[in-house]
Amino acid sequence: MSQKKILLIVCDGLSDRPVRELDRKTPLQAARKPAMDALARHGVSGLMDVIGHGIVPGSDTAHLALFGYDPYKVYTGRGPIEAAGTGIELHREDVAFRCNFATVDGSMRVVDRRAGRIKKGTSELAGAVTGMRLGDVTAIFKESSEHRGVLVLRGEGLDHRVTDVDPHHEEVILESRPIVPEAAKTAQAVNEFVQRSHEVLLSHPINEQRVKDGLPPANAILPRGAGSTRELGTMKERYGIDCAAVAGVNLVKGICRMVGMHVPEIPGATGGLDTDYRAKGEAALRLLESNDFVFVNIKAGDIAGHDGDYRTKVRVVENIDAMLGLLLKDLHEEVVVALTCDHSTPVSVKDHSADPVPITVSGGGARVDGIKEFDEVSVAGGALGRIRGMDLMPILLGMADRASKFGA
Amino acid sequence: MSQKKILLIVCDGLSDRPVRELDRKTPLQAARKPAMDALARHGVSGLMDVIGHGIVPGSDTAHLALFGYDPYKVYTGRGPIEAAGTGIELHREDVAFRCNFATVDGSMRVVDRRAGRIKKGTSELAGAVTGMRLGDVTAIFKESSEHRGVLVLRGEGLDHRVTDVDPHHEEVILESRPIVPEAAKTAQAVNEFVQRSHEVLLSHPINEQRVKDGLPPANAILPRGAGSTRELGTMKERYGIDCAAVAGVNLVKGICRMVGMHVPEIPGATGGLDTDYRAKGEAALRLLESNDFVFVNIKAGDIAGHDGDYRTKVRVVENIDAMLGLLLKDLHEEVVVALTCDHSTPVSVKDHSADPVPITVSGGGARVDGIKEFDEVSVAGGALGRIRGMDLMPILLGMADRASKFGA
Repeated sequence: MSQKKILLIVCDGLSDRPVRELDRKTPLQAARKPAMDALARHGVSGLMDVIGHGIVPGSDTAHLALFGYDPYKVYTGRGPIEAAGTGIELHREDVAFRCNFATVDGSMRVVDRRAGRIKKGTSELAGAVTGMRLGDVTAIFKESSEHRGVLVLRGEGLDHRVTDVDPHHEEVILESRPIVPEAAKTAQAVNEFVQRSHEVLLSHPINEQRVKDGLPPANAILPRGAGSTRELGTMKERYGIDCAAVAGVNLVKGICRMVGMHVPEIPGATGGLDTDYRAKGEAALRLLESNDFVFVNIKAGDIAGHDGDYRTKVRVVENIDAMLGLLLKDLHEEVVVALTCDHSTPVSVKDHSADPVPITVSGGGARVDGIKEFDEVSVAGGALGRIRGMDLMPILLGMADRASKFGA
Repeated sequence: MSQKKILLIVCDGLSDRPVRELDRKTPLQAARKPAMDALARHGVSGLMDVIGHGIVPGSDTAHLALFGYDPYKVYTGRGPIEAAGTGIELHREDVAFRCNFATVDGSMRVVDRRAGRIKKGTSELAGAVTGMRLGDVTAIFKESSEHRGVLVLRGEGLDHRVTDVDPHHEEVILESRPIVPEAAKTAQAVNEFVQRSHEVLLSHPINEQRVKDGLPPANAILPRGAGSTRELGTMKERYGIDCAAVAGVNLVKGICRMVGMHVPEIPGATGGLDTDYRAKGEAALRLLESNDFVFVNIKAGDIAGHDGDYRTKVRVVENIDAMLGLLLKDLHEEVVVALTCDHSTPVSVKDHSADPVPITVSGGGARVDGIKEFDEVSVAGGALGRIRGMDLMPILLGMADRASKFGA
């Protein structure tokens, strides 16, 4: 029995609902897509609830589930995931926190946990505090959307098991405390960061202007949700496989790095509508030579969905199909190929939805089930049945003869 | 409403993947099998993940799941299952342990937990210690594969809640302690067995020869994983049904006895490729007269799969089909008949795989879903959908009108 390689292609948000202007077909049903249909014809298909029935996945939780990490378990210490979303490249020893910009009064009492939902100037404020040295620990701080930000502590001997600084109510800022003795240094660094960043922010021109404008100043940072990627464990540790990813979007790249995948920069793979499909396909083939598992994320379908643009979405399907055609031509038939989406982004919704996504797996040990087209409706009668995102990795490892026997 | 009888036929390892030499058909698809197809035509079909998506079942864990016992819960106190595998017939009051032959030094410190992975002579060593009297308790010891063995304590007032003797590391042998007061006698018996078997093994000719050959002597036995079949509960206790089994293989017979089935010896039912299909069919019919549930295991498909022999596997399908034809001819239409496999053993893998198995249920209260053939592909669109092994017993009891109402 020889272990086979796995190629997982995720078309971000490509799954959809019937579109009136497309004669009640979905973009996948309306498009010409010979390569996707060939995959379906040579494999097994089904529908997948990426997280669960009626759960609208985010791209972060969806990808965690697709990689076999239960988002309900790993999403609690959300700091690392938030950090991944901002594009900060996390090291294994880092401790990451979600943060709010907040407004405090003279006695460090929180008067607005979101600093008036500040929208502008957070990049400058972040720039004034990032890089701060806390003994031998470095604080990396980056703004995220609106009043949100991410704090990453980098240094030796850190431990994520500390309590939140954020009081979660309009009360006096808390002191972070170690939950275990090993986390004493981390708690001390957080507290020092909170105090010193407060001093820097108090007199920052952005805040002086806000006070003049009658707006609450963003004069404090409240870290919470400490976590480290070490808790998650890598794909290599979980499955014993070397993994690489081809992705253009920071959030997805961050999640991939967090689970230990090799994520090279691919010139031209931007994550936008103009993304270079051919460059992504060629990168995937190259990475398959030295890895057991290669993951490819193609973002364009999600963007067309958010834009509510069904014409573009049909064209995206056809562009991805052309890439797939080139890729499959050069692929060994023993490679297990899975084609799916991380969630639906219906053009009629202009956002993610809970609708299940189509999935087809072919090659390697996959059977052939008689399904002939890859779309949300045709796959429903396939032999995979209706699975969940968390089922995907075990299924792929099974078809790649990489699963171990339970029992005798 | 009259309660119906149930016949569960498990074709061990018969499920497969597409075989190149069979024009990409599976052996089930390639064979002529009018009786199996008739069952599918008259019933409901589906695919079954016997343990779970992407989990490769052993025959032991698979049968536990098919009988409705969650292998993840009952497989931990593995002593009884290991004992069942060696063919020891367990009584309800017995306490069983998994054991290693190990090498200890003069101060009872384990220097090799597997006695150099000893392969030869364990049958003689087991013979020297089995039957030992420990007060009014009898120790039954049997070698299993390589350095493994099974200890069964038989007597009155025993209880499995004792700690392991095996230190699981190269440390001094532990003393077994009772976890509850009722287990004091058992712990004492284990400790006495470990001490006295050490004395017997020390001077055994097999070990004297091993020392001469520079090999670590198997001079100690380390029991762990105590369990009793009482913890499991019988099928009768769970479902209120009298159960019997027709099986040729020791491991499967052992599991059946463990869950309280009546397992008569069937002359000619060997569990090999030459097994007497007709004798098994006739035995099943006979047992159905006095039981509510009869289970039949036919091993031959698994053997052909392990041998990688697709021609034999096709012939096995046809032989089983002939038996089924005879059996069904004489079967009352009110009997619920389920036909399935415990796992796939693809000829291309030569071992168990995680691929789901086909299942068809007909007779009794089963509906008819329009599926016309019994194979891995045809059943995929059936009305059972994709189920798990643990779902099977509730489904069969429901169709046999043996399930009780939940609510008013």
